[in-house]
Amino acid sequence: MKQFALILYKTKFHPFLLFPLFVICTLSTEARAAAKPNVIVIYADDLGYGDLACFGHPTIKTPHLDQMAAEGMKFTQFYSAAPVCTPSRAALLTGRYPIRSGMCSDKRRVLFPDSGGGLQASEVTLAEALKETGYKTACVGKWHLGHLPQFLPTSHGFDSYFGIPYSNDMDRVAERKLRRKIFLKPKVEYWNVPLMRNQEVIERPADQTTITKRYTKEAIKFIKGNQKQPFYLYLAHSMPHVPLFRSKALEDTSRRGLYGDVIEEIDWSVGQILQTLKDQGLDQNTIVWFSSDNGPWLIFNEQGGSAGLLREGKGSTWEGGMREPTLAWWPGHISSGSVTHELGSTMDIFTTSIQLAGGKVPSDRVVDGVDLSSVLLGTGESPRKEMAFYRGTKLMAFRKGPWKAHFITKPAYGREPFKEHHPPVLYHLEHDPSEKYDVAKANPEVIKSIKAAAEKHQQSIKPVPSQLEIPLKK
Amino acid sequence: MKQFALILYKTKFHPFLLFPLFVICTLSTEARAAAKPNVIVIYADDLGYGDLACFGHPTIKTPHLDQMAAEGMKFTQFYSAAPVCTPSRAALLTGRYPIRSGMCSDKRRVLFPDSGGGLQASEVTLAEALKETGYKTACVGKWHLGHLPQFLPTSHGFDSYFGIPYSNDMDRVAERKLRRKIFLKPKVEYWNVPLMRNQEVIERPADQTTITKRYTKEAIKFIKGNQKQPFYLYLAHSMPHVPLFRSKALEDTSRRGLYGDVIEEIDWSVGQILQTLKDQGLDQNTIVWFSSDNGPWLIFNEQGGSAGLLREGKGSTWEGGMREPTLAWWPGHISSGSVTHELGSTMDIFTTSIQLAGGKVPSDRVVDGVDLSSVLLGTGESPRKEMAFYRGTKLMAFRKGPWKAHFITKPAYGREPFKEHHPPVLYHLEHDPSEKYDVAKANPEVIKSIKAAAEKHQQSIKPVPSQLEIPLKK
Repeated sequence: MKQFALILYKTKFHPFLLFPLFVICTLSTEARAAAKPNVIVIYADDLGYGDLACFGHPTIKTPHLDQMAAEGMKFTQFYSAAPVCTPSRAALLTGRYPIRSGMCSDKRRVLFPDSGGGLQASEVTLAEALKETGYKTACVGKWHLGHLPQFLPTSHGFDSYFGIPYSNDMDRVAERKLRRKIFLKPKVEYWNVPLMRNQEVIERPADQTTITKRYTKEAIKFIKGNQKQPFYLYLAHSMPHVPLFRSKALEDTSRRGLYGDVIEEIDWSVGQILQTLKDQGLDQNTIVWFSSDNGPWLIFNEQGGSAGLLREGKGSTWEGGMREPTLAWWPGHISSGSVTHELGSTMDIFTTSIQLAGGKVPSDRVVDGVDLSSVLLGTGESPRKEMAFYRGTKLMAFRKGPWKAHFITKPAYGREPFKEHHPPVLYHLEHDPSEKYDVAKANPEVIKSIKAAAEKHQQSIKPVPSQLEIPLKK
Repeated sequence: MKQFALILYKTKFHPFLLFPLFVICTLSTEARAAAKPNVIVIYADDLGYGDLACFGHPTIKTPHLDQMAAEGMKFTQFYSAAPVCTPSRAALLTGRYPIRSGMCSDKRRVLFPDSGGGLQASEVTLAEALKETGYKTACVGKWHLGHLPQFLPTSHGFDSYFGIPYSNDMDRVAERKLRRKIFLKPKVEYWNVPLMRNQEVIERPADQTTITKRYTKEAIKFIKGNQKQPFYLYLAHSMPHVPLFRSKALEDTSRRGLYGDVIEEIDWSVGQILQTLKDQGLDQNTIVWFSSDNGPWLIFNEQGGSAGLLREGKGSTWEGGMREPTLAWWPGHISSGSVTHELGSTMDIFTTSIQLAGGKVPSDRVVDGVDLSSVLLGTGESPRKEMAFYRGTKLMAFRKGPWKAHFITKPAYGREPFKEHHPPVLYHLEHDPSEKYDVAKANPEVIKSIKAAAEKHQQSIKPVPSQLEIPLKK
């Protein structure tokens, strides 16, 4: 302000001449603060980059997601921060690579029902950060950041929780007869995953055939009941993670078979959410994100999804494992039908949301998320220029601009060992999104620059104990 | 009419009661006849299923083709009738599998500058069929159905021709010094492909850097100059067949590199064509098709395209070789933003166009094209339920409904021999568009049904001499 006055003095401008500018500045700051947009994050489970019609799938119909894209923004280079469930969700909620929170491991890739660890109380979740600025918060759907009470959503800033605490394929109950025969792989009799409300199990096994419908109902109820203050809704579908389930109304309706039915029910759900926002007059003040936790699970044949033209899928640090079909919708703010090729990550949803809400991004720790407002509002480039690709605690690959270098590769599944590359394998992802043509030899200076960036990134990592290796106390 | 009178008599209805119905019938027949829509077929060369933004490419920008899709219809299961150039174009123009016209061979897959054969005068092209009902016709672009005068467009029903007679990579002039060293593969000094107007060579080598722009200019000139009668324009781009060229204005403008520049210039061209139609008030009476002759040429690294989630590319009878990114545009007739999963083929453009023009589909020979009007107008299913996949004269695979059986497979390139499959390899293409999961064992009855359909198809084939094996007389 001092400097401002000085400038006025020096330029001998009469301050009143600047009054209109002052009003505009004040208004825009106030408008931004006053608005405090509602935030909805819809997160699919194991959905592939190529599984939506608006991302090129030939037979899955997603009219509501297509409409969301037509009214909003489509990201073509948007990443989750891990190729599997638990670390990816930790990053989404904390804006930090999972290696910073201990939510990854080289021994167990995700949390299991026999895990005793979870997301630490010291982490600041998006729910906590938004709650601090006056938001109501709800988590509906799959959690997978620890099923013990101290790790559940209600211990992490969410006012309420309705959903399953881990993956829908955990807690299998095997056929009794077959279980006795040791050498036979027991067939699943039923999936015993619990359904919880807040910290209580309310149904076990959860009836998964109606789960997408019930999540949607809960989400709509929360939206309708929370209009006196801004809200944050995290709607994390259990599907299309195997085993696949869908409502009776969707049975055998998709050309893509069971997997298609499941995606089309999620699409229906998105339509319901957006329609509710329109009906309630909230559409101009609610930013809705749609993304997925990781790529398609390719070991399940027709019951697994497709990464489109991207290489590999879930579990892998090739593009198919971590690039997600992502949409952002905010009528009146995001230009309708826009497509961005700027880089983004689920971690950026954390930072962007807090900035838009006028909240505080934690300053006592490294936050990897950046503010994507400029991309959303069409005012500038993405501040994100880099992306690290971790498998457990291993930094496998690093992207800088359009270039991605793989230091270590390994197929998502199977016994093939980790393979180190000297020099790294290099791809120009915008020319060659399928990671087919190694151009390392022709670009030594790019390799050098990526190595330097990766080293700088690694220097910012402080070792913390893994939460995924802690066993459940009995 | 006799029967109509009889019905009126028998039902004792007063004829005047039926007058409104009569008027409607007459009008719709008349309207259809009077309309005689203009037909434009824009055909790309080696463009992959995944190379347009509206088909899911992450970094190639195709705003005009996306707009064409948004205003028209996108086909997600539309096939060329061959995985390489010459036979594919023969099928497009005759509505017949190339094996019927002799425009395929197991020795030479396409025509070359040293070929003496071409499309026979006995074949009826779309240009001839439409000309007969009063259309003006023009061919602009790559021909590749014979470069001798008797085979050129002007000998096949086109009033005019401007373009190159075969592929842009034929007629290479090698570096003189290197040519002497027999064991060194000579480097290309320049591409000597001629540019023709009607039957005259007007430029050699054709300046390919401006070729897309010049094709566009010619096409627009034809549209503007032919509004007194209906017209048919066949605009066959030389690009993105390698070697890749684009205008100065497009140089290094695409995130996808050179290949992206080239596609984005084709996209620009499409925009120019559609805008011209709108400006001239012809949009409601012109049906525009956009498709490609075959899949992407995958042996050219970053200079080859992408088939998206489809398997393999040009030269192969896997989906990537023959499924094409296809759009149809006809404002006021085709519902805007429609997506069809119905089957279609470039051969159907022949039959559909003639039907819409009120012309005569040849009845003295087998025509494989079907009338897709019902799909375009949203009134019914596609009459196409089957598709044959030929490599040269070999029936490699056959699709019936969503199922495709491969009787023989072979990679597009390389020395791997033809591999016969007993039973055939079977894919459910709507569940598994990437042809990953062979489901032959579980579906013997499907195999039986496809085999019967393929045999029936093969019985309709009469052997004709191959035009591709005839040498040029010197």
